[in-house]
Amino acid sequence: MRDDNWDIVIKGGTLLTMSAKMEIIEDSIVGIKDGLIVAVGQNGDRGFTNLKTKDTIDASDCIVMPGLVNTHTHLPMVCFRGMADDLPLMEWLTNNIFPAEALFVNKKMVYEGATLAMAEMILSGTTTFCDGYFFEDTITEAVSAAGMRAVVSQGFADFATPDNPRLEKMLAAARRFVTRWQSHAPMITPAYFCHSPYTCSPETLVNVKEAAREAGILYLLHLLENKDEIDTILNRYGNTPVQHLLNLGIFDDQTVAVHCNWLTSDDMDVFASLGVRVSHNPESSMKLAAGVAPVPEMMKRGIKVGLGTDGCASNNDLDMFREMDTAAKIHKVTSLDPTVMSAQTVLKMATTGGARVLGLDKFIGSIETGKKADIILVDINQPHLTPLYNCYSQLVYAARGADVKTSIINGKIVMKDRQLFTIDLSAAMENVRGIAANIIAGK
Amino acid sequence: MRDDNWDIVIKGGTLLTMSAKMEIIEDSIVGIKDGLIVAVGQNGDRGFTNLKTKDTIDASDCIVMPGLVNTHTHLPMVCFRGMADDLPLMEWLTNNIFPAEALFVNKKMVYEGATLAMAEMILSGTTTFCDGYFFEDTITEAVSAAGMRAVVSQGFADFATPDNPRLEKMLAAARRFVTRWQSHAPMITPAYFCHSPYTCSPETLVNVKEAAREAGILYLLHLLENKDEIDTILNRYGNTPVQHLLNLGIFDDQTVAVHCNWLTSDDMDVFASLGVRVSHNPESSMKLAAGVAPVPEMMKRGIKVGLGTDGCASNNDLDMFREMDTAAKIHKVTSLDPTVMSAQTVLKMATTGGARVLGLDKFIGSIETGKKADIILVDINQPHLTPLYNCYSQLVYAARGADVKTSIINGKIVMKDRQLFTIDLSAAMENVRGIAANIIAGK
Repeated sequence: MRDDNWDIVIKGGTLLTMSAKMEIIEDSIVGIKDGLIVAVGQNGDRGFTNLKTKDTIDASDCIVMPGLVNTHTHLPMVCFRGMADDLPLMEWLTNNIFPAEALFVNKKMVYEGATLAMAEMILSGTTTFCDGYFFEDTITEAVSAAGMRAVVSQGFADFATPDNPRLEKMLAAARRFVTRWQSHAPMITPAYFCHSPYTCSPETLVNVKEAAREAGILYLLHLLENKDEIDTILNRYGNTPVQHLLNLGIFDDQTVAVHCNWLTSDDMDVFASLGVRVSHNPESSMKLAAGVAPVPEMMKRGIKVGLGTDGCASNNDLDMFREMDTAAKIHKVTSLDPTVMSAQTVLKMATTGGARVLGLDKFIGSIETGKKADIILVDINQPHLTPLYNCYSQLVYAARGADVKTSIINGKIVMKDRQLFTIDLSAAMENVRGIAANIIAGK
Repeated sequence: MRDDNWDIVIKGGTLLTMSAKMEIIEDSIVGIKDGLIVAVGQNGDRGFTNLKTKDTIDASDCIVMPGLVNTHTHLPMVCFRGMADDLPLMEWLTNNIFPAEALFVNKKMVYEGATLAMAEMILSGTTTFCDGYFFEDTITEAVSAAGMRAVVSQGFADFATPDNPRLEKMLAAARRFVTRWQSHAPMITPAYFCHSPYTCSPETLVNVKEAAREAGILYLLHLLENKDEIDTILNRYGNTPVQHLLNLGIFDDQTVAVHCNWLTSDDMDVFASLGVRVSHNPESSMKLAAGVAPVPEMMKRGIKVGLGTDGCASNNDLDMFREMDTAAKIHKVTSLDPTVMSAQTVLKMATTGGARVLGLDKFIGSIETGKKADIILVDINQPHLTPLYNCYSQLVYAARGADVKTSIINGKIVMKDRQLFTIDLSAAMENVRGIAANIIAGK
């Protein structure tokens, strides 16, 4: 490969590769061409002296690292950010969120909500996310316009949803959605999302899983977010949620279970043996008082775990840096063991771990030649990031989304020096303010 | 009072007074003169039309609110930020922090560390803090230069400290410290800080308390940070820590106990009846896996509780916005009750609550005429703060330190549009990097 025909070179800065070897390269060079990482090394090495690239990014005073992977979002819920807080999960969901969704979710709301959510995510270092909501087809158009990488999943539930007032048409619409976007992988990867075992009948759960298997796509569902779910499913079907889903044949290594706060030791054995993956959303589950997932135990058993923020109505932000900080701390304190969840472990969970959960680890999660160029620069020349002893610790415990200076997704610069290139930020904020004004007026 | 002779007017913006009535004023006016708030109202009201003030601050697109009160810091520990993480408290303290302090803490280190810490605090919305460390006299010189409001406490322990190699001279030095600074209240308020019941003998605890009573100053100590402390004190003195201190006559309404993670119901009765105050530091205690303080229970009993970050070696930042977010969430999830700690309750804890704990509530904590002008502006024209339904929720769950645009302490603008006026930020960072380089080299 010739050095002089790269599209972008990122020069200087401390590179965290997050590869299996976890190399850290000082005064680094990363070469990008045609969306791929084509060179990783040290400035001055390997003939990196006569570079003639189209674009040079100075990474002095920066940590260069893989973009963060948010394994669970409901993007348009930014429109409900702060609308109903400090409430129990079921009261929040059934008395506030579901009614608001029935009234106010439409194509315009999801497009504009998703666009603002992506602005927030890019500005806080996320390059890939996994979304599930209504009108996912429209959301995906917004994703495509914003140039983010995503797993986009069409939602299913056994009640009429804003996008599918006639239940029997849900699956046909979802199939059209998959057909439309399946060729865009690995930028855009369609999937199916059954809301939960308590909102989806066994028939729905099974039919959607079969359709997902046919299409060769991921199948997601919320599982064991709060403790009551155990009694609900026990009363309804005579089995625990995990046993219920196991009996239905739902679980396999293309299944992502979200939350899993009340997973038992037996449940984890099931997950480990069948390769079921987990999305861990500590802040949302703390705020809803839903519980703390036994993630250290899951990881001991080799279960793939990625980090996620959940939707903005239950967090209330999409900042993966905050989420990493909380993830590291909550497991320490609940186990009274500060060694269970190190900064490095959490940073892996938010990069390579998330990539594995989404089935994208061949493409993203680390900075290595041949991988897609999803890269962020974190500005460390700041008082709260001074001094610097340990990059992993600094990123997890002290850095925050606002420290992300530049973001590259699939080899395209989507944000530089905090300026977004693919989203009109003022318009995005104004549009969502308009939607919120209608929600307030409609109350 | 005439309108035309104010020093500063803050105009426009949504004002959260945090007064007893918790008024929220849209398109507000705050007038400042001679360090005091002299007018609070709505733009256009009460003849606020012909203002001729020296300085006008445009608060459009901002929340105007009292500066945050951080009730527990060890400022110079910024020099140890990220030096030793993911370790148990006692291993962290005795094998890492105490040895590093013995080697590297000196007047230069504390001055420069404190200066960088204050830069970080001002940039994240704190206007008042309560510090305890070695060479507190030198730290206080840095505080005075930075123009922050602080309770500064000279530390005591039964081992030779970097500032007091001869134990018998500790109290005399501390008395000189108090004499030097006592006249600077309420900008600078000296206090005494006994490290803990396990590092201070009964004699030290009692002698220092007597000296504090004589001087009429606050007495602070770390208490029940981790569970082992109960056994340590039981084995050594035959009593629980709280009973031990109660028997020694330490407790009164001028005592601030820091952490209190393992306070029992009986302990809380003691605190409530004697007026003992509490500094709550959730993030530090989570990171050290020390425990979660029973704050909702304390508040039910009327115990005064303020929020704090603790030192940077155990958090690892001084951002009170992050601390508020965590405080709200950790109590919800540990009690599995999302109503125990509302956003409003937490914001009170970080403003008026902290002011009460530090005995400064006559002067600060709310925006009311006659109070000192300690005020911050939070820029809400940002994607992660859009839309806005509820200011309290937004500030606690979505805002972060980096959103603080402007800060006024005692009527002086110390930061405007993210530029610091009283601290040379580049020099502060460079100085601490130099100290860290020596620490790394000395290892």
